[in-house]
Amino acid sequence: MKQNMTRKILQSHLVEGQMVAGQEISIKIDQTLTQDATGTMAYLAFEALGIPKIRTEVSVSYIDHNTLQAGFENADDHAFLQTIAAKYGVHCSKPGNGICHQVHSERFAIPGKTLLGSDSHTPTSSALGMIAIGAGGMSVAMAMAGQPFPLVMPKVINVKLTGKLKPGVAAKDIILELLRIMTVKNGVGKVIEYTGSGVETLSIPERCTITNMGAELGVTTSIFPSDKVTYEFMKNQGRQADWIELKADEDAEYDEVMEINLDELEPMVAKPHMPDKVVKVREVNDIKVSQVFIGSCTNASYLDLARAAAILDGKCVHENVSLCIAPGSKQVFEMVARDGILQKLISAGARILESACGPCVGIGQAPQSEGVSLRTNNRNFIGRSGTKDAKVYLASPEVAAVSALTGFITDPRDFDGLDLDALQAIKETEDRILDDRMIVAPKDNTEDVVIRRGPNIRPLPLREGLEEEINTTALLKVGDDITTDDIMPAGAKILPLRSNVPAISEYVFNGIDSTFPSRAKENKGGIVVAAENYGQGSSREHAALAPMYLGVKAILAKSFARIHHDNLINYGILPLRFKDKEDYNKINQGDVLTVKNMKEQIKQSEFTILNKTQGIEIKAYATLSDRQKEVLLEGGQLNYIKKLL
Amino acid sequence: MKQNMTRKILQSHLVEGQMVAGQEISIKIDQTLTQDATGTMAYLAFEALGIPKIRTEVSVSYIDHNTLQAGFENADDHAFLQTIAAKYGVHCSKPGNGICHQVHSERFAIPGKTLLGSDSHTPTSSALGMIAIGAGGMSVAMAMAGQPFPLVMPKVINVKLTGKLKPGVAAKDIILELLRIMTVKNGVGKVIEYTGSGVETLSIPERCTITNMGAELGVTTSIFPSDKVTYEFMKNQGRQADWIELKADEDAEYDEVMEINLDELEPMVAKPHMPDKVVKVREVNDIKVSQVFIGSCTNASYLDLARAAAILDGKCVHENVSLCIAPGSKQVFEMVARDGILQKLISAGARILESACGPCVGIGQAPQSEGVSLRTNNRNFIGRSGTKDAKVYLASPEVAAVSALTGFITDPRDFDGLDLDALQAIKETEDRILDDRMIVAPKDNTEDVVIRRGPNIRPLPLREGLEEEINTTALLKVGDDITTDDIMPAGAKILPLRSNVPAISEYVFNGIDSTFPSRAKENKGGIVVAAENYGQGSSREHAALAPMYLGVKAILAKSFARIHHDNLINYGILPLRFKDKEDYNKINQGDVLTVKNMKEQIKQSEFTILNKTQGIEIKAYATLSDRQKEVLLEGGQLNYIKKLL
Repeated sequence: MKQNMTRKILQSHLVEGQMVAGQEISIKIDQTLTQDATGTMAYLAFEALGIPKIRTEVSVSYIDHNTLQAGFENADDHAFLQTIAAKYGVHCSKPGNGICHQVHSERFAIPGKTLLGSDSHTPTSSALGMIAIGAGGMSVAMAMAGQPFPLVMPKVINVKLTGKLKPGVAAKDIILELLRIMTVKNGVGKVIEYTGSGVETLSIPERCTITNMGAELGVTTSIFPSDKVTYEFMKNQGRQADWIELKADEDAEYDEVMEINLDELEPMVAKPHMPDKVVKVREVNDIKVSQVFIGSCTNASYLDLARAAAILDGKCVHENVSLCIAPGSKQVFEMVARDGILQKLISAGARILESACGPCVGIGQAPQSEGVSLRTNNRNFIGRSGTKDAKVYLASPEVAAVSALTGFITDPRDFDGLDLDALQAIKETEDRILDDRMIVAPKDNTEDVVIRRGPNIRPLPLREGLEEEINTTALLKVGDDITTDDIMPAGAKILPLRSNVPAISEYVFNGIDSTFPSRAKENKGGIVVAAENYGQGSSREHAALAPMYLGVKAILAKSFARIHHDNLINYGILPLRFKDKEDYNKINQGDVLTVKNMKEQIKQSEFTILNKTQGIEIKAYATLSDRQKEVLLEGGQLNYIKKLL
Repeated sequence: MKQNMTRKILQSHLVEGQMVAGQEISIKIDQTLTQDATGTMAYLAFEALGIPKIRTEVSVSYIDHNTLQAGFENADDHAFLQTIAAKYGVHCSKPGNGICHQVHSERFAIPGKTLLGSDSHTPTSSALGMIAIGAGGMSVAMAMAGQPFPLVMPKVINVKLTGKLKPGVAAKDIILELLRIMTVKNGVGKVIEYTGSGVETLSIPERCTITNMGAELGVTTSIFPSDKVTYEFMKNQGRQADWIELKADEDAEYDEVMEINLDELEPMVAKPHMPDKVVKVREVNDIKVSQVFIGSCTNASYLDLARAAAILDGKCVHENVSLCIAPGSKQVFEMVARDGILQKLISAGARILESACGPCVGIGQAPQSEGVSLRTNNRNFIGRSGTKDAKVYLASPEVAAVSALTGFITDPRDFDGLDLDALQAIKETEDRILDDRMIVAPKDNTEDVVIRRGPNIRPLPLREGLEEEINTTALLKVGDDITTDDIMPAGAKILPLRSNVPAISEYVFNGIDSTFPSRAKENKGGIVVAAENYGQGSSREHAALAPMYLGVKAILAKSFARIHHDNLINYGILPLRFKDKEDYNKINQGDVLTVKNMKEQIKQSEFTILNKTQGIEIKAYATLSDRQKEVLLEGGQLNYIKKLL
């Protein structure tokens, strides 16, 4: 069989299962990464396993999210992450060293390898020809313990790139075009492979922009070949020894094939509030902007900033615009300082922010009320910027820079006096500054490492073993489309509590019923009754972990969102589905419920719930793999793996 | 009479009063400045006066404090400040353009002029030979309206500087030495004049470091002569036309004289939690640091960063240290970028922050729990960093940079391989980059300017006219040393509400009695009973304004802190003092109190309070100038000035 790149890498890492699309397989993970917002829980989980050292080839803990430090919590998390990394042989990239995906692509990504990261944009590194996948912190902890990573074998889509981007058009416009075509829904269960003559026209940072925003398509990952461009990039990074060639066999088989002709693309923009609401920039060029942000793991490379600086050079941002720029990594920051690019940005009135995620995830630089913010990052969900009624547009650094000058969303091709050919001639520098001193490498002797735990860092709570019988109540009854944000809110106030489950659990269902945590504790837990699509949205594990801490034993719903369904199982909460959806009406909040013979029912995946209050029986079922049954029987993933080890 | 500099400037600006130390005078104000944390209220007050345009020579609204933008409030404040500045002829320095005092000294300060600023470190600009004074936002609003500024004629202290700083010793060590000698208490009611041969050895940024931290001595201001050094600095700023010479007459009279021999100084450090807890660096060189901050209005000049970079060049911060650096202004930021200084800082692992106040005021970069933070800023009060149990030390950029490398508080003279003479040879650059494009200048036509008011920006509440009789209750009874932080807390959660008095008033006395706001509203106001030193600490006006909004009519105390006493009057709250301090025991919280014949009693400054609950009379008095009596009779400063105009 002619192999595509995805199958080649998966085949070489396959531990269990058949590589048939839709079936569960498990693969060996070579590398892991975490960031600080998800990392503390991942390392607490790893620690709970009792293994002396990580079992991957390399694991990196990046500190790039919670860098504002409005209170002691962030810095305590940083100290915890740095010391626990030292303890277990993990590299720690200190705050200021840059955004995980930018740094990982520069310093760690290797063609042909697998990477699992507790951040949804982990696929960025697949631009170098590896399989890089985002997952929950618990999954990353398991991978660090050497456990194979279970995933559903994806379909593989071939996106053929032909032609060459025209001046003023950017890599960002390729992925925006793909989002326009595929929307945010049609990538689920798939991997995209880029091939075609257009590929060799794209530098690694440009490829990274594309693989990064593949996450918005919902794909498992997006992969580029490892070619001459990859080799040159790695050579400039001093890592040519790690390079291998990787490409699809000629006439390799794909589940779907698409083509994008780069010649035909124009500058695009994603309108509020979804990355797939893509139109041509010229269609919205009457929209005033109050803020522009150039940065994030999507578009903060040397090339991005160099082109923005060329546009801004000698000019000044529009009076009514706040332009903020955050370089993607210390390497980028230092090189743009060296080459005079940074001075041009400062001179033009840019507010230079630390090299970190920042505004992209609403960590600072929230726009003004009803403000229009044009950003180079990857997501424009409502409220994500920190301002609920702000309108966020997504575009390339070129569009962003031009718009910062005009005060309107502007196509670079319409900006008087801009030499588009000169702009396109600006390339990623080959003269890289290589300096890993801000990445604390593992030491040989870790015995005297003391893990620093601030008062906000609490051990990971574990569920006790499975009960044979649950006698409890319907603690809460909710409707359709409950998001993980509804279950476990984020925001500046709650995010710093991610390392402290007892504290963060006080906010479970805060927007729906603020009495939920106290009622749950009083009642020693309970069952939540829900309708369709329970747990949609962000993949945050705390939406399972915190309810588990409060004693929630099961969610009884009409249907579940995929990732949250898995998270519930990981934390030992039963994801039960009504056999007859009409039975949703046969339970009221407060009803006394009993489930007997738990172990047997889990094995059968069939459940009978007695509603004592109403004197009726309700039938339910669960969709569980054999592994997931074992996990539930043990009371969660951590207990399960502990037993395996 | 031989005149000192202070008397020369005050004389030329005198509007009313006798220039006798301790007596109230009033002076013409030439320039004003505000920053965004105090500015919104100042401009709301100015707007309430109904004047079409400011009446100063120049007024500047700086946006430098609330730049984190964790929610919509900060950006809304910025938009409000920029549009209201445009409306009334005020310059607006946009976020990113730098810290008010740094920018003002570079671009606006003029020898011989007066400056009033709603920030306690406004005296920084006196380094250029002007009288620059910090005050409340209401006072600055009055000055913008052309009203003379009332102040108590200060005593003038002459500090003679002799000799020359030794290599490794910095301007910061001069002011730290002065703080060691005078403490934070002994400057009240005084102005310091620096003279002597040591003065000419100090550049303007070095002088600014000294006048800046004069605020910590409690002095009204500190002034340097305007000499050749001043001329050169202003010439490099393109402002030589504004230069005049200013020096004290020979044998000018002073109230006190001190001498500091620069030859004898060593690197110093202020220990937690007060800027006067000063010791030699060598006395504390066994203390581990977890964070170092180089920045703030005290020490973020080109010279400061150039010397720090020379120390850090080619090295990397200690593994356990987080080093953050924020340039003082866009001018400095651009020049250090141009001259390769910034690259050295980035290379050494510094986290580069936007040019703003930031960590100095706890706006980001809060240290880890129990962390030791060594900072170049001016205050190390407990909790100010954002971490209650952090220990903040204050020192020069040289000490800060060296300590960031060693991980311990370190004297630069003890750092192996550091060429101290080369370090001292680094000078402030003469090749300034002059660019005011981020300062939005007033326009001729302001009629079509629309002031942008986000939902968090509410009109300044006014007290109604004075009642002839108060019938109310003792709403709250508190003890000694209640701070303005106790009355009106700050912090990341409450600071964004500064523009919204109805919202911020919900936190009045939050830490003492969270029911106070609701009780006050229910009771339609009341009287607060206090013991000694009520209102100590920060000068924040919201500690008077918000209680006024809640209906508080009077504070009956054993004694008051000076600034808060004046703030109470400005907002129409009576500051009453027990004639017999024992009477403090004759009122319980909840007692019904009556004060009759208010107008007459204010005129006499003698008050009889009937405690109806206990059936007794309590005698009180107030210390009021004639002007202050008028202010109280009108129900506050704004009503008073409105009537005058």
